Amino acid sequence: MAGERIFLDHASGGPLWPAARAAMEKVWSGHGAAPGGGHREARESREILEAARKQAADFLGTNDPERVMFTSGGTEAVPSAVRGWGEAAGKGTIYVSEMEHPAVESAVRRLEKAGFSVVRIPVDGEGRLQWKKLKPTGPGLVCVHLAHHDLGTVQDLKQAAAFAKWAKAGLFVDATFGAGWVELPKGLEGVDLLAVSGHRLGGSKGSGFLWVRSGLPWKAQVEGGRQENDQRAGTENLPAITGLGAALTEWKKNADKFRKGAREAQQALLDGIRKKVLTAKLQGPEPGPERSPAHLGISFAGLEAESLALVLDRVGLAVRGGSGCVTREMKIPPAMKAIGAKPEEARALILFTLGVGTKASEMAAAAERVAEAVKKLQEAMPR
Amino acid sequence: MAGERIFLDHASGGPLWPAARAAMEKVWSGHGAAPGGGHREARESREILEAARKQAADFLGTNDPERVMFTSGGTEAVPSAVRGWGEAAGKGTIYVSEMEHPAVESAVRRLEKAGFSVVRIPVDGEGRLQWKKLKPTGPGLVCVHLAHHDLGTVQDLKQAAAFAKWAKAGLFVDATFGAGWVELPKGLEGVDLLAVSGHRLGGSKGSGFLWVRSGLPWKAQVEGGRQENDQRAGTENLPAITGLGAALTEWKKNADKFRKGAREAQQALLDGIRKKVLTAKLQGPEPGPERSPAHLGISFAGLEAESLALVLDRVGLAVRGGSGCVTREMKIPPAMKAIGAKPEEARALILFTLGVGTKASEMAAAAERVAEAVKKLQEAMPR
Repeated sequence: MAGERIFLDHASGGPLWPAARAAMEKVWSGHGAAPGGGHREARESREILEAARKQAADFLGTNDPERVMFTSGGTEAVPSAVRGWGEAAGKGTIYVSEMEHPAVESAVRRLEKAGFSVVRIPVDGEGRLQWKKLKPTGPGLVCVHLAHHDLGTVQDLKQAAAFAKWAKAGLFVDATFGAGWVELPKGLEGVDLLAVSGHRLGGSKGSGFLWVRSGLPWKAQVEGGRQENDQRAGTENLPAITGLGAALTEWKKNADKFRKGAREAQQALLDGIRKKVLTAKLQGPEPGPERSPAHLGISFAGLEAESLALVLDRVGLAVRGGSGCVTREMKIPPAMKAIGAKPEEARALILFTLGVGTKASEMAAAAERVAEAVKKLQEAMPR
Repeated sequence: MAGERIFLDHASGGPLWPAARAAMEKVWSGHGAAPGGGHREARESREILEAARKQAADFLGTNDPERVMFTSGGTEAVPSAVRGWGEAAGKGTIYVSEMEHPAVESAVRRLEKAGFSVVRIPVDGEGRLQWKKLKPTGPGLVCVHLAHHDLGTVQDLKQAAAFAKWAKAGLFVDATFGAGWVELPKGLEGVDLLAVSGHRLGGSKGSGFLWVRSGLPWKAQVEGGRQENDQRAGTENLPAITGLGAALTEWKKNADKFRKGAREAQQALLDGIRKKVLTAKLQGPEPGPERSPAHLGISFAGLEAESLALVLDRVGLAVRGGSGCVTREMKIPPAMKAIGAKPEEARALILFTLGVGTKASEMAAAAERVAEAVKKLQEAMPR
């Protein structure tokens, strides 16, 4: 291995941004009072909290900060959206693909068990949801992602919103993967619920939020004290919240620059890998408007993803082997099944996820390491 | 107002401890990789995570760190305990008082709606659970708190465990108030589930954990990815977790010193208030083994708690007026109702909660401010 390690597992984790950290440090150095009290310290905390809420609404491009509720992350925000809607609705039809993140899927299955109908949205070979092949069978909730965590596919939210309208259903957008990197519909038109993960946006682990459109029937899922306007109990994680606010403001200011930088690195990495590894096959759409600029999912047929990831680690490249998030019973990433990938491709998926700090200039070296690892592993395999 | 502000609302919030912050800073300065991957960065994160889990088990005095699952705080840990037990059990009887924290109460009501029986544990005039007045009506779950958030009453966990055994029920201890300040049963004998809030122990907001005894039927409540041994999904909040670990180690080393310091301050404050304000009435037990050393709940009959808290704020004392945690429909803290407090006392409860940094030497000044505020408010009231 030559040179510095290269980290391309940003979807799972990544560094806290300096702007977020600076905001958090300020709160940590303070009294630590919860925002909920009547005293001066509480009021000071409340101001910080509400400023972050405003930053979140600005990031979304809406003017209703009061509809933002901060959560402990995407994995809380996502099921809170689905189950909170379900509890308020009582019944209905859920339109959802078979390749959603387990946080969505498990929440949907809970509602299915409770009597809700589930209609599966078909998917094409690159992970695009096939709205035209779908007909409403009743009102309920449409669940989509902004970009897919394993395929990188960006979904067409206009079509999703049009379908939801046709079905007289609400629209939930899981933006925990894709937010920031992918443009949101202007004013969140047609969207009723939207979940965001903070650490994927440069904020702290343990931060995130759920946005719920005003007037949408929705029931709080985290119960206890009266925080977050009675919508999410628990002492507010003010440092994480203010850090997320600062990171979201960075996105608001620099999204174009961040996306452009990632797009260049993404293309350089893909070109490099394709040039050096003939078996490499991109899953999901080609780089462009239909793909998150921060994501490449590439299959190396004939190899086992986990093993390849370990060899890649040894040659200085940190990536994820296999799906970003699978549950115990899933041997093959559900997205690979949904798009009809061959089993040997499905088992050999490596996720390269980029961050704002990823340099295009390093991607040739990264591709070199991929080639080296693939060669090593192929040579080590029994013939 | 003379002198520095005095902050006595530590139950709601309080400063992050230097040891916790130092541990967190170290993680923040790093790569931020999630512990779940196969690469070197993930392994490094995993070591930090497991070290914190060991620190949590040491704090509990158990040798099963694998039974500790980190949560986003007490408000997640508490309902996860109750609902996770309920989902695994399917049916049963829940033994619980009518003065539990809303996080417990709301989880119990959800199970009640789902068909579980609920038996209310009677309470005496100082908030002690009356085990001898209770008879088992079936197996299930006994829910108790370690110390009461509004009354400061320390519960007798030996009696609770004996009752649970008699009823063939599990025992859940809500230690989100009381942990650290109050000794836990050795080896958590008789306890099946225990919830801890991190920020009340000097850790960060957004930290906490749930301990589940090995073999107890319990179902994960936060679903999604495969973190925390499939017991709690979501990217681990490593900075918060490592900070909590460091704070717990401080407790392990210094609990006696911390408790002694608080006891002195508590007594000084109580003596001072009693001397200066004749209407002051302590709710819950006198300072001693039956009361958390970090807590005084005092009624000032004839005054409105919220108003008094505001005047106290103006004279430089930050406290909480009314219950620490009430839900919208509760006008009177349920604990005050449960102990049979007179309405004029129930409406006039001020919570003084101490932290490790609270100085006994400041308590005379704090009591002085209480006297001043009471006088001001009495004078301002219509006759």
